[in-house]
Amino acid sequence: MSFEITGRHKAFEGETAYCRHASTETGTQMAFAVYTPPQAAEGEVPVVTYLAGLTCTEETFMIKAGAQRIAAELGVMLVAPDTSPRGLGLPGEDDDWDFGTGAGFYVDATQAPWDGHYRMASYVVEELPQVVAANFPADLGRASIMGHSMGGHGALVLGLRNAGRYRSISAFAPIANPMDCPWGHKAFGNYLGPDRADWAAWDATDLVRSGRAAWRGPPLLVDQGRADGFLDEQLKPKALQAACAATGTPFELHWRDGYDHGYFFISTFMEAHLRHHARALGLTA
Amino acid sequence: MSFEITGRHKAFEGETAYCRHASTETGTQMAFAVYTPPQAAEGEVPVVTYLAGLTCTEETFMIKAGAQRIAAELGVMLVAPDTSPRGLGLPGEDDDWDFGTGAGFYVDATQAPWDGHYRMASYVVEELPQVVAANFPADLGRASIMGHSMGGHGALVLGLRNAGRYRSISAFAPIANPMDCPWGHKAFGNYLGPDRADWAAWDATDLVRSGRAAWRGPPLLVDQGRADGFLDEQLKPKALQAACAATGTPFELHWRDGYDHGYFFISTFMEAHLRHHARALGLTA
Repeated sequence: MSFEITGRHKAFEGETAYCRHASTETGTQMAFAVYTPPQAAEGEVPVVTYLAGLTCTEETFMIKAGAQRIAAELGVMLVAPDTSPRGLGLPGEDDDWDFGTGAGFYVDATQAPWDGHYRMASYVVEELPQVVAANFPADLGRASIMGHSMGGHGALVLGLRNAGRYRSISAFAPIANPMDCPWGHKAFGNYLGPDRADWAAWDATDLVRSGRAAWRGPPLLVDQGRADGFLDEQLKPKALQAACAATGTPFELHWRDGYDHGYFFISTFMEAHLRHHARALGLTA
Repeated sequence: MSFEITGRHKAFEGETAYCRHASTETGTQMAFAVYTPPQAAEGEVPVVTYLAGLTCTEETFMIKAGAQRIAAELGVMLVAPDTSPRGLGLPGEDDDWDFGTGAGFYVDATQAPWDGHYRMASYVVEELPQVVAANFPADLGRASIMGHSMGGHGALVLGLRNAGRYRSISAFAPIANPMDCPWGHKAFGNYLGPDRADWAAWDATDLVRSGRAAWRGPPLLVDQGRADGFLDEQLKPKALQAACAATGTPFELHWRDGYDHGYFFISTFMEAHLRHHARALGLTA
């Protein structure tokens, strides 16, 4: 397994590391970032994975979210993968900002030419944790997942589909019902094909509503800005809220007046999300 | 006076605003960013100006430094200007990353072709505060200044030269003795001409050592990472430390093991710097 640390930066007495490795899931080099808190000097620490949104990279979260300060206090490792494979040269891969490069949508593609490479679900859930644990003091038995926008969708879907692996799930402005929005139609249509029955397995709202995902952990924590320009057309948190209410799925939605879709919003509520995960991970009461 | 807000983003119950205006000092459009804390709803708040380093823009600090959280707690406005005029088309302006565009060095140039435009000292000290106060609830009678690298030099020099305007001064990894380093030689030679006597007025170490700047405020606060790749050749905080010691100038230098020159370092110690300014501004004991 190739693995390389391309940059190390001390931060809040821990370290942000930028990494690259040859991924078997994607068949490409994949990039990710890890923040190791100072408590890791004493032994393995729990892990919170953060999935970023459209056009982002492994750097975005580490630079903009202000999470390291809180992770250093709580003693949690942060892992942030890139948002897609890159550089494959597939037809159409780089034509749009909301599909292909930077827009893997955290599914395992089934349609050519994407199916051999755009396997971000298996990458995030299966391969990435192994690479992290082989190179950093991560306790994979204590893991949670969070994300933003496309990555909020990713955190919800991968958390719900793999409930045994994650103790808590949270999202900022997630694409909560991708089967019912333009971004989701485009991504799912291309990655998963025309049959909407195949899309349902990757839609948080449908997973909950149908009962195929039975989440019994702490509430799915969602923050949503009321001034978010993508809210009505793309995000649809009320659909997820209704599905959770109908099925008794624990869910906590915070509407935030005046906040938009960006990292100033995320950074404002990052501390509350990380404290939510820290409680689920047994780090705090 | 033209003035335009090009973006507004709620953050920590206050707001980050990106602004543009036609500057009389530079003869160009200038960009700056302002964070207005929630306390400004009750009346004017004190102002901390942050000067960024080489290649940075008005966005860098607001995105990467994690300062808004602390400013929102303390009730201080943050102002971050761009690092130079842009788009003048002067010969040589865009040839190098460490001179011209993105590298105004916070001096008032005296040499053609720069002298009509590269007037960042007067811009930051005179014009920018007026534009800010005309458009935001800023109390210019309570002001402090800070910066990083080239902007740390700028904060020290502009603070020392205008001690009546600033109650406290701090810097992260400043170019502390630009007369004695390659970045300074290049910038001062081009902006100020060949006479080193003209450079001395813009060198923090020389201002202190010569007694021309007599700082009697709270200690000049400097943080410096020991793993900073620019430390030995470009930054030279020990020269400033010696000048302060020789003249009884209050000075506080914190060496930070393992930290480099970037914003992960800055964000780690941002809270300590803003609390230093908050005390000088009478916001906290």
